[in-house]
Amino acid sequence: MAYTIRELQEILRKFRDERDWMQFHNHKDMATALAIEAAELQELFLWKRGDEIDRVASEKRERLSEELADVAVYLLELADNLGIDLGQAIVEKLSKNAAKYPVDKAKGSNAKYTDL
Amino acid sequence: MAYTIRELQEILRKFRDERDWMQFHNHKDMATALAIEAAELQELFLWKRGDEIDRVASEKRERLSEELADVAVYLLELADNLGIDLGQAIVEKLSKNAAKYPVDKAKGSNAKYTDL
Amino acid sequence: MAYTIRELQEILRKFRDERDWMQFHNHKDMATALAIEAAELQELFLWKRGDEIDRVASEKRERLSEELADVAVYLLELADNLGIDLGQAIVEKLSKNAAKYPVDKAKGSNAKYTDL
Amino acid sequence: MAYTIRELQEILRKFRDERDWMQFHNHKDMATALAIEAAELQELFLWKRGDEIDRVASEKRERLSEELADVAVYLLELADNLGIDLGQAIVEKLSKNAAKYPVDKAKGSNAKYTDL
Repeated sequence: MAYTIRELQEILRKFRDERDWMQFHNHKDMATALAIEAAELQELFLWKRGDEIDRVASEKRERLSEELADVAVYLLELADNLGIDLGQAIVEKLSKNAAKYPVDKAKGSNAKYTDL
Repeated sequence: MAYTIRELQEILRKFRDERDWMQFHNHKDMATALAIEAAELQELFLWKRGDEIDRVASEKRERLSEELADVAVYLLELADNLGIDLGQAIVEKLSKNAAKYPVDKAKGSNAKYTDL
Repeated sequence: MAYTIRELQEILRKFRDERDWMQFHNHKDMATALAIEAAELQELFLWKRGDEIDRVASEKRERLSEELADVAVYLLELADNLGIDLGQAIVEKLSKNAAKYPVDKAKGSNAKYTDL
Repeated sequence: MAYTIRELQEILRKFRDERDWMQFHNHKDMATALAIEAAELQELFLWKRGDEIDRVASEKRERLSEELADVAVYLLELADNLGIDLGQAIVEKLSKNAAKYPVDKAKGSNAKYTDL
């Protein structure tokens, strides 16, 4: 199914409120929870190189899917709690990134914009 | 606007391919980039407590919006690159979480499921 | 015992070389490993507040000790691999921090130096 | 100079107490600060591969030294605040790691002990 960000946020809100968890979900802990899940995602690739990275992508697909979902759950709920429209925020950020990384300068380069 | 996850992923793919960046966007570095952005999000709340956390939410709204977007950009592209349907992954993960945290046991508790 | 940084680094080098692990310990993966361990340390305090934080400190002492050690292991080996004298680096960084956070301005404040 | 862990911790304690910062340095925020610094360390290597990683090691030596120091500062103070002997913790953790990764099984392998 092609979920909108908002539909997913509604599902998450319901899940949380049934458990009365909003009392723990202050913005600071939510950001920390997100970072912890991001580290768990990283761990799946630790020490891997070249082909091994692709092998993780196919062999640990289930785990990867779960870790991505964990990150997404905190990200979507945090944006919702902050009243920030995440889709809009992405589009606006891309427009800023386009100014920092203009196609003619950034094409094929892995340099940070400060080094372009 | 109510973007779907897939619409946003298409926008991101176009942005990346115009810059010929797919060569750098191996899954491992994408996961690392995501974790770095999550840390920048955390930094906005570091050392803050109680009311100060809410004050960050209102006074640093622009920065928060950008950091959330940065996390989202890497998350959505990584899921896309891995061929994982992020909306579906969230819904499936929630269903597993519901089994680990049944409402009657988890309601009002901040314990990890292993300690419930 | 009062170990010096260098004594600990020597112990770590021996442990690694017996296992022929230097081939995996490139600086980039070492930095990632360090960050993953830092996240595991954070997880012990997630959702905890006030007195609960102190309770973690006493009840999960063994786990805390292990997570701190995990972070330290990667930090000390990475500094060693880079040929950076960690003790010296700390002393130099403190001297820079003292300039950014002079006692008369920073005393009792949790503001970042850019906001002082 | 060959600093002991404890000498460095004493220097850090003095720096903190002159600024009356202990009030902010609860264990949870200290762990978060450590993780944020670890992410900044990672950022220096982001998108780099092969020779580029070594080039970072030589060209960004000053930055690397500062980021390693930042991680170390929080790690050493946190261990000190928790009353955990970090040198001892490292030696004990290595002894556990030696049991999980015996030389004959782990030599030359990048597998997690659960996959050995």
